[in-house]
Amino acid sequence: MTDTVLSLAEELIRRPSVTPEDEGCQALLIERLGALGFTCETLAEGGVVNLWARRGNDGPLVVFAGHTDVVPTGPREHWNTDPFVPTIVDGRLYGRGAADMKSSIAAFVVAAEEFIAHNPDHRGSIGLLITSDEEGPAVHGTVKVCEQLVARGEKLDYCIVGEPTSTAQLGDTIKNGRRGSLSGRLVVKGIQGHVAYPEKARNPIHQAAPVLAEMAAAEWDRGNEYFPPTTFQISNFHSGTGASNVVPGEAVVDFNFRFSTASTVDTLKSRVQEILDRHGLEYALSWSLSGLPFLTPRGTLCSALGEAIAAEMGIEAELSTTGGTSDGRFIARICPQVVEFGPVNATIHQVNEHIAVDSLVPLKNIYRRTLHALLSLPPAP
Amino acid sequence: MTDTVLSLAEELIRRPSVTPEDEGCQALLIERLGALGFTCETLAEGGVVNLWARRGNDGPLVVFAGHTDVVPTGPREHWNTDPFVPTIVDGRLYGRGAADMKSSIAAFVVAAEEFIAHNPDHRGSIGLLITSDEEGPAVHGTVKVCEQLVARGEKLDYCIVGEPTSTAQLGDTIKNGRRGSLSGRLVVKGIQGHVAYPEKARNPIHQAAPVLAEMAAAEWDRGNEYFPPTTFQISNFHSGTGASNVVPGEAVVDFNFRFSTASTVDTLKSRVQEILDRHGLEYALSWSLSGLPFLTPRGTLCSALGEAIAAEMGIEAELSTTGGTSDGRFIARICPQVVEFGPVNATIHQVNEHIAVDSLVPLKNIYRRTLHALLSLPPAP
Repeated sequence: MTDTVLSLAEELIRRPSVTPEDEGCQALLIERLGALGFTCETLAEGGVVNLWARRGNDGPLVVFAGHTDVVPTGPREHWNTDPFVPTIVDGRLYGRGAADMKSSIAAFVVAAEEFIAHNPDHRGSIGLLITSDEEGPAVHGTVKVCEQLVARGEKLDYCIVGEPTSTAQLGDTIKNGRRGSLSGRLVVKGIQGHVAYPEKARNPIHQAAPVLAEMAAAEWDRGNEYFPPTTFQISNFHSGTGASNVVPGEAVVDFNFRFSTASTVDTLKSRVQEILDRHGLEYALSWSLSGLPFLTPRGTLCSALGEAIAAEMGIEAELSTTGGTSDGRFIARICPQVVEFGPVNATIHQVNEHIAVDSLVPLKNIYRRTLHALLSLPPAP
Repeated sequence: MTDTVLSLAEELIRRPSVTPEDEGCQALLIERLGALGFTCETLAEGGVVNLWARRGNDGPLVVFAGHTDVVPTGPREHWNTDPFVPTIVDGRLYGRGAADMKSSIAAFVVAAEEFIAHNPDHRGSIGLLITSDEEGPAVHGTVKVCEQLVARGEKLDYCIVGEPTSTAQLGDTIKNGRRGSLSGRLVVKGIQGHVAYPEKARNPIHQAAPVLAEMAAAEWDRGNEYFPPTTFQISNFHSGTGASNVVPGEAVVDFNFRFSTASTVDTLKSRVQEILDRHGLEYALSWSLSGLPFLTPRGTLCSALGEAIAAEMGIEAELSTTGGTSDGRFIARICPQVVEFGPVNATIHQVNEHIAVDSLVPLKNIYRRTLHALLSLPPAP
């Protein structure tokens, strides 16, 4: 059935669904899922279309989550092929979205078809949560669908987000959590003046330097079994009028924490404030929380997916929580077990994005085996 | 003779000689000085007019140096009076250049008139070096006249630069030197990346912070009898793409030393480089020397001027080397004794610049007494 996963992936890639456009991707999925007995609902919100599809009424509910939107192509002339014309060269399927994440969607749909064909009366339910707003502001997409699901009392038990998590080969990495992202803007207030009269000025760059040095060198936590230590990075530092003889009046510093579950938003905020206050800075500080960390410890879902990978690929997947944020952070609020798993991510967001054609069937089989483990066996104790 | 200094100052203020325009200021001086027997030469250079006037052929040569140009007015509506219409209110003469430094020029011209009237056969020579390019780039002004004077073998012995050096009251401060100014631009080279993957990036802000903290806290020298310690100030620090999730690839830092004669350009450069190298930075560093320090230790000129101030004002002038750079740094290269002395500088470069009317005659008298001490008495031993 290789051609079924491949052909569905190709059909999706052919639709130029740059965020927040959908370009008929979800209509195509509705057609396939409807034929399988899924109830499909389109939840349009703020120019974004979201699809919620469910087959079955009972628990447990196993959800596949993903997005039909893709990032922009970048300069077309840097592509060897048209990014919206799926093209196979040397065993690789090229096109925008080939890896992130139209192939995952195609693989899951076909996995569901195969699973249902053999288990028409499976226990529990299968759901698909598909958005066209993952690569953009992520305001009207998954987060809104989750709100609606909560409002109507739908209870998710397991969720696989089809993000491309594999690094060297398909199956090597499952993300069983993501770090949180907490950003801050620090404005250090000095007193402007002439460099020839520093005693009449207070240089905010001089004041900020030892503070930032301390923050850059600090150990915020040591991580834990699942998470690497929390990291701190300054992304922007701007101070100065441009003139070479003026001591600037303020310095503006943007920084970001990617934080593990070994820290909390409150502990990070209070440690930053303690450092600033101890150095006697006059400052203004504002915070922006992009995402709380989430974690799915080893358990039913990790085991089912890990065993599916082992059976299909003969390798043991590593659990990882590194990398950026994803829609997993929203789903984790309403679903106790959320993992991310998908193909190799080496070329995502780049020109000449591609996926190995011969990874499509194994990917589909891993999803199918996982469905089988969760919905056709007696419930885990 | 109050009205003579005042009226000449007013006539100069009436001419809107914003750098590099002269607007007839020097023609007015040539008229007055020519009548006194000065040989006047206009040395035009790059849109700047400079005046070199000399009376006498022998040494010692006592030079008054100054500038007819003024800084821009700033917003006219912030002035209480027209900046180019000299106006007396409550005993203060208002106008752009009133303090910096048209009143000094008027005072010196009248001082020379009075001195010559009583000492028509004074020994030595009197010179005036007037430029219209002090407040601007200072490229075609005093520095060019000095080159010409050297080229023709003119030997300066003493020079008084008429900059407004007094702070609380006329006569309280003589500048007998100025610090040097050395600027540097440091580009710290990092590796750009995503804040979620700091291990793949190298953050130049993080690398710069401890280095700049060390430089800001360093003692560069302790100054000496005449100079305060060398100061270090960062004027600009810019790094970051604006995006909050990108580790920037480089950081650009501008800094400036105001340095005493206790340091040299070479010692400062090598100490900076030592710090950068010790921290293991990858960087590019470029230097720009705006002015070497100069110093006129206590001696004939300081004494003559100090005694003139004491006699006229009843106070002892303080010798100081603080503040910005001035044209004194150019003259010091060709003249062994250079000091700066003039009226109160509280309002220079500001709106509503003014000078106390009753300081004009004492200022003139101080200049006259100094000429008298240097040119009508037997030479100092």
